[in-house]
Amino acid sequence: MRVSVAIDRRPEIADPEGTTILRALKELGFGEVASVRMDRVIHLEVDGDDPDEVKRRVEEMCKQLLANPVLEDFVVTVDP
Amino acid sequence: MRVSVAIDRRPEIADPEGTTILRALKELGFGEVASVRMDRVIHLEVDGDDPDEVKRRVEEMCKQLLANPVLEDFVVTVDP
Repeated sequence: MRVSVAIDRRPEIADPEGTTILRALKELGFGEVASVRMDRVIHLEVDGDDPDEVKRRVEEMCKQLLANPVLEDFVVTVDP
Repeated sequence: MRVSVAIDRRPEIADPEGTTILRALKELGFGEVASVRMDRVIHLEVDGDDPDEVKRRVEEMCKQLLANPVLEDFVVTVDP
């Protein structure tokens, strides 16, 4: 099964990469950009038959390795 | 307007970060994972009234700065 994990920094956590991109876009003439956040998506291919069980296992992977629970929120989506 | 830009490495381009995560997951006992790809999502807040024009401008930002057209594909989505 294909699984996507969207990992976003929490809103109150600074995003230096996004801030740098915002400044660069303005210097290139894209003055209409008000904010930029850079986040991650992890695409996994996981063996399994039960979407609920696959989702539960991937959430466990997030807690143990993929995400930093202090700084980041994650959303696991099992593709149909 | 909120705009999301999904930037994925082309399938034929190696993803060392994904490969490292795959190995670590297997060592942690998640043997059911067959592949891992790590990609980026950029969330922008852009001033504008016309979704088509906003999308066109963000695609221009991708070509000039956000994406590497040799290694990456991008998809721009203007949130409703």
